[in-house]
Amino acid sequence: MARENGEKTTAAAGGESKSSGETVESREWYMAAYSPQGIPTSDHLKLRNVSITLNSLPAGHVLAQTLWLSVDPFLRSMMSGTVDGLYLPQVDLGQVVKTFGIAKVVKSGDENYREGDVFLNPFQPVAEYAVLPANPALLRKIDVTGQISPLDYLSCLGVAGFAAWLGIVLLGDPKPGTNVFISAAGGGVGMVAGQLAKLRGCAVIGSTGSDQKVQLIKDEFGYDDAFNYNKEADFDVALTKYFPNGIDLYLDNVGGTMLEAVLNHVNSHAKVILCGMMSQYNKGWKEREGVRNLLNIVGKEVTMKGFMELSYMNHFGDFSKEMECHIVQGKIRTKHKIYHGIESFLESLESVFLSINDGKVVLQLV
Amino acid sequence: MARENGEKTTAAAGGESKSSGETVESREWYMAAYSPQGIPTSDHLKLRNVSITLNSLPAGHVLAQTLWLSVDPFLRSMMSGTVDGLYLPQVDLGQVVKTFGIAKVVKSGDENYREGDVFLNPFQPVAEYAVLPANPALLRKIDVTGQISPLDYLSCLGVAGFAAWLGIVLLGDPKPGTNVFISAAGGGVGMVAGQLAKLRGCAVIGSTGSDQKVQLIKDEFGYDDAFNYNKEADFDVALTKYFPNGIDLYLDNVGGTMLEAVLNHVNSHAKVILCGMMSQYNKGWKEREGVRNLLNIVGKEVTMKGFMELSYMNHFGDFSKEMECHIVQGKIRTKHKIYHGIESFLESLESVFLSINDGKVVLQLV
Repeated sequence: MARENGEKTTAAAGGESKSSGETVESREWYMAAYSPQGIPTSDHLKLRNVSITLNSLPAGHVLAQTLWLSVDPFLRSMMSGTVDGLYLPQVDLGQVVKTFGIAKVVKSGDENYREGDVFLNPFQPVAEYAVLPANPALLRKIDVTGQISPLDYLSCLGVAGFAAWLGIVLLGDPKPGTNVFISAAGGGVGMVAGQLAKLRGCAVIGSTGSDQKVQLIKDEFGYDDAFNYNKEADFDVALTKYFPNGIDLYLDNVGGTMLEAVLNHVNSHAKVILCGMMSQYNKGWKEREGVRNLLNIVGKEVTMKGFMELSYMNHFGDFSKEMECHIVQGKIRTKHKIYHGIESFLESLESVFLSINDGKVVLQLV
Repeated sequence: MARENGEKTTAAAGGESKSSGETVESREWYMAAYSPQGIPTSDHLKLRNVSITLNSLPAGHVLAQTLWLSVDPFLRSMMSGTVDGLYLPQVDLGQVVKTFGIAKVVKSGDENYREGDVFLNPFQPVAEYAVLPANPALLRKIDVTGQISPLDYLSCLGVAGFAAWLGIVLLGDPKPGTNVFISAAGGGVGMVAGQLAKLRGCAVIGSTGSDQKVQLIKDEFGYDDAFNYNKEADFDVALTKYFPNGIDLYLDNVGGTMLEAVLNHVNSHAKVILCGMMSQYNKGWKEREGVRNLLNIVGKEVTMKGFMELSYMNHFGDFSKEMECHIVQGKIRTKHKIYHGIESFLESLESVFLSINDGKVVLQLV
């Protein structure tokens, strides 16, 4: 992990200091250069020191210490410099990267937040400390002493869990007994999606990137079966073996050749829910793998649907309620791959594309 | 046009004879060899003479003379010898090809049909005469002296019109003012689809294969604008020009590079209705053009849906009623490219893939 000391900037804040005097010393990851191709490196993402002045925290703001951050594949699409595919806004050059996270109020300039309050923030800076507008619509307070682990707020109750719920429950909506296939099944979305499909009474099979993860998703996440895509020379052969009766619902997290193979094995009126395409994010669109058999969508009368979570925020309440209920009842199990320290953010992001993690990737800062 | 005299076979029938004695001499097209690639030729489809014996028409059958036949791109998918893409059953080798047609009862062995009755048959043999089971669920009698031309039963009221109605009205269901794009706009489906979208108050633009057809679809079929895809070196440039505000609904009849280009120009929550993929039928799936930018389906939250007409037969009544109403009120105009004589079937089928016809391709036998 490259750890660099970039330029030192200052931000206005007030109150106690982590270090001495009237500033808090913080480190943050910023976009130094865009990365059109490949996995971003230390050429693109750099760590810098920031001093936050404490004597002038603006009214209606809080100074927050970041506790945990969610590391998700879609972040990569905000770092290419090209609005493409996911159509997410790009991180401005020189600006700090943001992601879903959990932080603690260190000093408050707003009556709704008190020192020690812990909150979720969908747009938490990848920084040790940050001054944030005290917007209750964004910074949702959570009880970290309750039945739900803070990490679960970043996995099954966070971006990944919501994607899984939207893909399986809201959009996929499979009947009991139908055949469900999930790619990247050992990742943050896949681990939740498989369990949700099992709760619906489906036959669920996943693909993942190692034998160890095949075992994990069968043992821990309730998949009926799974295969290691790195060991399958021909996905068509694999799907013929694992789906002798065809696929009714595919939750696609990878795109490319796996999606193409699936389209040769879908049943009539199958649904293909496109959640993301991890295998394609590190390429410009003209370099991505073309899917040649879309005519199957006609013949098999497939519905293929993509979604972005922000369009479904009106369902977030229903999702949270259902998922919290599952967690408390022990019906959803989670696993987290935890990277430690702000300096590990780049490593954790790289790891997402190397298929080397079990479960949801999280960066723990404290 | 190759005109061949194949083996002479006989079929049982009864009653009057077109020729002399107790047989009717007929010619029919049969599948001599499958055509995995390219446009089928006289190597694959052959014409043969058949004698139908007239003295033993079975009870519950009719002897019918074929009047008109609908020549449609999807027929190609039943001639490759591989069940693929559209997943249609293949025409058995040595068997006569069948398509949607209009025929007249020459002799009846069933009380529901009388000599002179004219009926539609979704599976009419590509033959001058045929003995058919008198199944009222299949052989629907029509009044050829009424307000509706028999040819319209094969175009806007037939396979092509039903596809257009399903794609635009039932599945696309566009709001007034939305931007609709239709490929193969000068063909049987496109000519009806554009008019249906205009009746819904949409802005409708089509692509077609010649300048003359560009003019036709603007002048006759009500398209707001159109372009000749053979003159556009870069579909992306064309779509940028014709859709400065993006595409809300795309009715795809061609697939391949046009579909890929469209996916770079769709608006959020666009619908892509896959009706067929004429540009891809003459290739095995591995040779088809891969679509590389399916990630746009995620970012733009597109719903892509394929359909086959047979799954929607419960809507055929509603469709017919609405379309007949449009025709009688002069709201839907049609154009037919008529090929003449049973011997022209192969030529008419070839022509479908050469983009040389205006409107719906029909073979007229009498």
